[in-house]
Amino acid sequence: MAAKSLATCIFCKIIKGEIPSYKLIETDTVFSFLDIGPLSKGHALVIPKYHAEKLHEVPDEYLTETLPIAKKIAIALGAENYNILQNNGRIAHQEVPHIHFHVIPKPSASDDEGLVIGWPTQEVEQEEIEQLHDELLKKL
Amino acid sequence: MAAKSLATCIFCKIIKGEIPSYKLIETDTVFSFLDIGPLSKGHALVIPKYHAEKLHEVPDEYLTETLPIAKKIAIALGAENYNILQNNGRIAHQEVPHIHFHVIPKPSASDDEGLVIGWPTQEVEQEEIEQLHDELLKKL
Ligand SMILES: [Zn+2]
Ligand SMILES: [Zn+2]
Repeated sequence: MAAKSLATCIFCKIIKGEIPSYKLIETDTVFSFLDIGPLSKGHALVIPKYHAEKLHEVPDEYLTETLPIAKKIAIALGAENYNILQNNGRIAHQEVPHIHFHVIPKPSASDDEGLVIGWPTQEVEQEEIEQLHDELLKKL
Repeated sequence: MAAKSLATCIFCKIIKGEIPSYKLIETDTVFSFLDIGPLSKGHALVIPKYHAEKLHEVPDEYLTETLPIAKKIAIALGAENYNILQNNGRIAHQEVPHIHFHVIPKPSASDDEGLVIGWPTQEVEQEEIEQLHDELLKKL
């Protein structure tokens, strides 16, 4: 499987070893390392070895190992509570434009460490969700 | 592949069709449907057909298809900006104790819709992260 990389991408450079990292697990399709600007102790990143900004741009064969590797890291961390997060696009909080999955331990309920989540549930009419469902089924 | 289910679990009941859902894609190992308490239009869930609360408890074979299915849904939604989120444990914001991945469109930068993220970056000494790295490598 040929990795696709971009010469100017910081994560592609980390994958190629051109920039050092606290590497954890590497396979043919994914690379993982500790985040040096962590939200909590053990915050790690798992990245497909394919340069693309967002999930929908990555071939499936670079996505199948990602969660099993994130799982291995979660087990090594021994975290009871943790979040798996992957942000697509600037307003969705993506900072580096190479797809990456965060494994973020949540050691306490405090907003001072780990991922902090706000959950603005929307009011929706049943009719509205039924219409959306019909539309999506045509596209799937 | 035999699905593992729990009679009292709401998501296991949805998988079995005992509770109706706005089903999107189903495969041998995963089931997906629209969230009826969405954070934004198109908020969907992808769940492995294996009853376990957290990522580290799910066999790999139930995890490999999850991201490719989330990707298909993201493409059907046509969202430019979106988050993939999987919460493990109550203090990490997990509400239903059956592993589930959220696909959450972020239509605008507003805190009134889509996932709202707080990012409390920690100060860490290089020595501290090196020590953690050494410890983790022994466990991986
Ligand atoms: Zn890259
Ligand atoms: Zn269940």
